[in-house]
Amino acid sequence: MARLNDIKAYFRKLQGDICQALEEADGSAAFHSDLWQRPEGGGGDTRLIREGAVYEKGGVNFSHVHGRLPEVLKSETRSAEWFHATGVSIVIHPRNPFVPVIHMNVRYFEMSAEQDGEPADRWFGGGIDLTPAYVFEEDARFFHQSMKNACDRHDAGYHAAFKQWCDEYFYIKHRGEMRGIGGIFFDHLRPDTEDRADALFAFVREVGNSFAPVYTEITRRRKDLPWNASHKHWQKIRRGRYAEFNLVYDRGTSFGLKTNGRVESILMSLPPEASWVYDHRPEPGSEEARSLACFQPRDWLA
Amino acid sequence: MARLNDIKAYFRKLQGDICQALEEADGSAAFHSDLWQRPEGGGGDTRLIREGAVYEKGGVNFSHVHGRLPEVLKSETRSAEWFHATGVSIVIHPRNPFVPVIHMNVRYFEMSAEQDGEPADRWFGGGIDLTPAYVFEEDARFFHQSMKNACDRHDAGYHAAFKQWCDEYFYIKHRGEMRGIGGIFFDHLRPDTEDRADALFAFVREVGNSFAPVYTEITRRRKDLPWNASHKHWQKIRRGRYAEFNLVYDRGTSFGLKTNGRVESILMSLPPEASWVYDHRPEPGSEEARSLACFQPRDWLA
Repeated sequence: MARLNDIKAYFRKLQGDICQALEEADGSAAFHSDLWQRPEGGGGDTRLIREGAVYEKGGVNFSHVHGRLPEVLKSETRSAEWFHATGVSIVIHPRNPFVPVIHMNVRYFEMSAEQDGEPADRWFGGGIDLTPAYVFEEDARFFHQSMKNACDRHDAGYHAAFKQWCDEYFYIKHRGEMRGIGGIFFDHLRPDTEDRADALFAFVREVGNSFAPVYTEITRRRKDLPWNASHKHWQKIRRGRYAEFNLVYDRGTSFGLKTNGRVESILMSLPPEASWVYDHRPEPGSEEARSLACFQPRDWLA
Repeated sequence: MARLNDIKAYFRKLQGDICQALEEADGSAAFHSDLWQRPEGGGGDTRLIREGAVYEKGGVNFSHVHGRLPEVLKSETRSAEWFHATGVSIVIHPRNPFVPVIHMNVRYFEMSAEQDGEPADRWFGGGIDLTPAYVFEEDARFFHQSMKNACDRHDAGYHAAFKQWCDEYFYIKHRGEMRGIGGIFFDHLRPDTEDRADALFAFVREVGNSFAPVYTEITRRRKDLPWNASHKHWQKIRRGRYAEFNLVYDRGTSFGLKTNGRVESILMSLPPEASWVYDHRPEPGSEEARSLACFQPRDWLA
């Protein structure tokens, strides 16, 4: 259990550090902590910010759940009966339409034949992706470059692979568009040795630690830009697409809802206000049309 | 093709009649017609009302699509290769939080071994259900009584069976609550003789024809009630649940998105403005709490 406890302690601290950084960036609102327990084992701490000066609605969720493996997970595992899952999951919806939505998840799963026994299988997963309503090219490049830097410090092949995985994962198939401009996404990174486990844990820490500096910098750049009702309208339409993706495609959401997960923590990702307009199409040549064209897989660092 | 053409002609006329009745009830807005074609065969006429005095966003969709059977439907059918599907589908989102959302669908499917050949399998489906943000008991009783009357004229067993089906279908499992107060829902009503086909078609017409008188009456009762920001807020939260149901559970929606259906016609059901608030719970004893308690299966005519 030594490694699990280390990972859990890191995630716990990451949650606190990120909340503090976001409170400073917001300047007015504070996170409220909602502790919850899972009847079958474990629980979490869902921290919410709402009606901030900058962040309209956001959640920074830590959880560590454990117990007997839910049926729906059994196909993914090597005949294990018991599991631990721990992670940090974040979605931030800013008020200003020029500040992007961000999502991060870092997680660790461990399965064992005996309760709390030696892991028979274990893996890390995670990622960070950015969902602007209005795309600023320099922010997009800064974000993707930061993700690449975090990856490159660990494996020269990570960034290309995890960026592509992200482009494919956050794709709203029925709309023919991505949720935003992507980032990195990885899952089932299984260590086959203890050294590999150390290395993967170090990579996941690198990703987790990159969140606050990158997002507070983008926030700082855009939070004071003036916006009007028409910008807000476009933001709400993009938030509608965000809700569509999460409710129709997101595996974490459907897995959580199917396994009787804590609904409020799962659906904290949904936007504070969203709109759906029949057959909405931005005016050709508009900033909205230009941004929409960016929601396709693309090499931002070319 | 004689029966299919009769059914289709009835659905076409029903669409026009309902649009006219809703325009009169709204008093200000007119439906806009959006004709579309399905590349693989057939098409539809999606009629939209928006920013009306009473109806903020609504769609009355007629479609008749046909061609080779999509793969996902094959398990439902008796080794047929070709199909026709025609129907009318309606969702109306009123502006005033005291006027309920309504949804109706009436449809007919037909499958055959040869293109446009004698049907090897065919069925009717449909239903009407009501989704108030605030429940008025007399409206709920009036609505359910109207549904019962329409059913009773055709089969003494229909109402109990189709009300229960509706209660089960429009249930948001992860929330432990219904989308609204239900109504009737039926599917796969397969005629085994021509007389039964006549009888089922007559029942579906009864349901379709009941829509406008019932909904315009409820609209008339509530459209001029004054409302404030707090009522609007609750309406938007309930609309969020509406979006959750449609995107997570509705079979028509997921079938449509999976079979490359016309996205805008499928998602016209989504609300114009919706909100998600973390762990929202109405104040005990409030009108909102009283209404929320109504979103459970219940015998409104007892």
